[in-house]
Amino acid sequence: MNCPDSALLTDLYQLKMAEAYLARGEQGTAVFEFFVRRLPPTRGFLLAAGLEQAIAFLESYAFSRDDIDWLASSGMFGAAFLEQLASLRFAGDVHAMPEGTVFFPDEPILRVTAPLPQAQLVETRLINLLHFQTLIASKAARHVLLAQNRQLVDFGLRRAHGGDAGLLAARASYIAGYDGTATVLAGRLFDIPLFGTMAHSFVQAFDDEAEAFEAFAESHPEDLVLLLDTYDTEAAARKLVTLTPRLRARGISIKAVRLDSGDLIALSRSVRAIFDEGGLRDVAILASGGLDDAEMRAIVDSGGPVDGFGVGTSLTTSIDAPALDCAYKLTEYAGRPRRKRSIGKETLPGRKQVWRRFGPDGRMCADVVSLEDDAVAGEAQLQPVMRAGKRLLPPPTLGDIRARSKESLARLPEPLRALDPAAGYHVERGGSLLTLARNVDRRRREV
Amino acid sequence: MNCPDSALLTDLYQLKMAEAYLARGEQGTAVFEFFVRRLPPTRGFLLAAGLEQAIAFLESYAFSRDDIDWLASSGMFGAAFLEQLASLRFAGDVHAMPEGTVFFPDEPILRVTAPLPQAQLVETRLINLLHFQTLIASKAARHVLLAQNRQLVDFGLRRAHGGDAGLLAARASYIAGYDGTATVLAGRLFDIPLFGTMAHSFVQAFDDEAEAFEAFAESHPEDLVLLLDTYDTEAAARKLVTLTPRLRARGISIKAVRLDSGDLIALSRSVRAIFDEGGLRDVAILASGGLDDAEMRAIVDSGGPVDGFGVGTSLTTSIDAPALDCAYKLTEYAGRPRRKRSIGKETLPGRKQVWRRFGPDGRMCADVVSLEDDAVAGEAQLQPVMRAGKRLLPPPTLGDIRARSKESLARLPEPLRALDPAAGYHVERGGSLLTLARNVDRRRREV
Repeated sequence: MNCPDSALLTDLYQLKMAEAYLARGEQGTAVFEFFVRRLPPTRGFLLAAGLEQAIAFLESYAFSRDDIDWLASSGMFGAAFLEQLASLRFAGDVHAMPEGTVFFPDEPILRVTAPLPQAQLVETRLINLLHFQTLIASKAARHVLLAQNRQLVDFGLRRAHGGDAGLLAARASYIAGYDGTATVLAGRLFDIPLFGTMAHSFVQAFDDEAEAFEAFAESHPEDLVLLLDTYDTEAAARKLVTLTPRLRARGISIKAVRLDSGDLIALSRSVRAIFDEGGLRDVAILASGGLDDAEMRAIVDSGGPVDGFGVGTSLTTSIDAPALDCAYKLTEYAGRPRRKRSIGKETLPGRKQVWRRFGPDGRMCADVVSLEDDAVAGEAQLQPVMRAGKRLLPPPTLGDIRARSKESLARLPEPLRALDPAAGYHVERGGSLLTLARNVDRRRREV
Repeated sequence: MNCPDSALLTDLYQLKMAEAYLARGEQGTAVFEFFVRRLPPTRGFLLAAGLEQAIAFLESYAFSRDDIDWLASSGMFGAAFLEQLASLRFAGDVHAMPEGTVFFPDEPILRVTAPLPQAQLVETRLINLLHFQTLIASKAARHVLLAQNRQLVDFGLRRAHGGDAGLLAARASYIAGYDGTATVLAGRLFDIPLFGTMAHSFVQAFDDEAEAFEAFAESHPEDLVLLLDTYDTEAAARKLVTLTPRLRARGISIKAVRLDSGDLIALSRSVRAIFDEGGLRDVAILASGGLDDAEMRAIVDSGGPVDGFGVGTSLTTSIDAPALDCAYKLTEYAGRPRRKRSIGKETLPGRKQVWRRFGPDGRMCADVVSLEDDAVAGEAQLQPVMRAGKRLLPPPTLGDIRARSKESLARLPEPLRALDPAAGYHVERGGSLLTLARNVDRRRREV
């Protein structure tokens, strides 16, 4: 089961609304903004990701003949609409924060300016693409800050929510500063470094554990990582000490071992001691097995000799916060600002810009969300990325995006770098924005 | 970004292990079983799903020329292995619980019997496919039991983890008893009923809310559902009462309204009262907006006049438990039972069967996990589904699977139907299974 690349990957109501708009000629310019309403309790900031996939989606947006035929056969839509749909393309403008930019609630990270039916039709998949990678990059950024330069590898494909999720999580975590992934196809598609060790089943398939190690070492002498915890971790470490001279004689050296269960702090210490005594000082120790923020922090704080982490489920499902409360909302139509006032979900009208200010130490100190044309001090975070349906600049490399993330994370205020969500960050709403919101409400009351 | 259908959608270590196996001629018959180790705290049972996608994956398992060329160019593998890989197909046997079967921890829901390299190579994607749909079907089953026959519709594509996740969540929730989905492509691919209403942006795009309602009604007179909470829910309900005679004159009737924010219990009551007084007794009230178990239970318990639920994020991310602690483990190789004893992750050896016993009331009362050949009273839950790489029976319809789920849920013991995880369920390990485990340990100690 793989997800076909189809414009039908959307909510039915988008098509129903598009039909109603087109029937009435409601093709005025609409402005929609994508933003996160509030942070999950365990996040102090978010890291924008997914823009490249969003741009690719918009550039190629089209209903195939086959899609149109199926819609016709469904009986849900009129022929006139389907004819219009067949030739519909996305021809709008897009402004966005580059991937790898830190952001906060109520700050739009993407703005679409397009004829209303186009801007509406792309909503569902656009959210789907921006939400997920932003979710995972934001989670991965926590691990990157916690790991303090220890190696981080994504092991999460098996429990990711489908195939796309595994691939996009590999990309998003690499953007945030992970060193690589175990997912082969992600390595291929995105040119992300690949890491692979061995599984318990390999050890189990042999009658003798040392024999399994030797067989694997012979087959994969380079970047050799052996798994120690199938039966008894310390006993396995001692077997490696015994085995090493035979491997060395054949020019094979063990790069690292992986511990996947038990008390990882205690075991890393005892394995380190066994290795150091046995002349295996160069063999690194990697930890895996249900690791998340708390376990990683405990290992780092303990000073235990763990050189890297393999992280699966907690990363690729963002397990403590598997969704962000995000939205894509109409803020202007046909030249007039719009807002909704649904209880607890009010939005602010107009085309917005986010301005970021930095202190004398180079760290971010406050953001201002204002109307686009307001003159506000600070660095503008939203940049034009598409005009009339076309990408404005060539795609950045993942290396460029990683560098931006790294700088973004380095410039976070210290309490947020320490991953303390309680610290908060000052986001101000520019004066003219609140005035506009009041004016929109007054106009609606007068109607 | 869509997930290409490639055998490279796997972990690197699977390929490394396969190379080592093939280099040594380790092609004996391996038995792997997929099971869940423990229930999340908020689940009392699980519902098996994803088998059809798993079978389709195994039946078509192959590395394309393009995959092989890329692997060769990566320099990570030898030419002899890549040649073997190019012709490798899955030719094993599979036993499984049918989709829509309730199951519990330590009960295998799928068993693969195949030459070791094949059984190993398919691990990652097999887990990825079985885990996610089982996760979502199990979550959806809670909603189905809670909703007590109110309509349930999946609205979750936008915050699902990628495109596959949205499609497969629509399928898994429909299996569990949801009435349908908003995801058009899921409707097309799986023949699931589609539901669509309207968004706030539609209302916002018009200067007047009533004008927006009328425009939408004219465009989509059938199955008309209007969204009431863009500005003021009760005011919108009164506007509909005023509008109704004009719509009726044109033969248009409102089927339902949707409330998406605020105090849904209080608002459903006041909207119901406005409608009943205004002659709109037939108009149903649907609730949506961040609903999960607790909100759904509160609405149902309140007796509030809510006729159906649109559920998004909580369903498609299984938000309270976004992953299951599941595994695919080697239990036999080359005729000898195997187990791992990693701390906290011990497995039981041998080919297993799950036997289910029912009480005089027709409800399930206990399961026994035994070795396949043990004579145990009860209904065997694992059935042969593939032989020598080929599917044994034509795929069941989703209707068949839904019927099985419905029966499964109806036969749950009452405390589990009441969604009380504390109640537990009795799963016994058959005597010969524990004896075998002890014997495997003894044999290993003797080695």
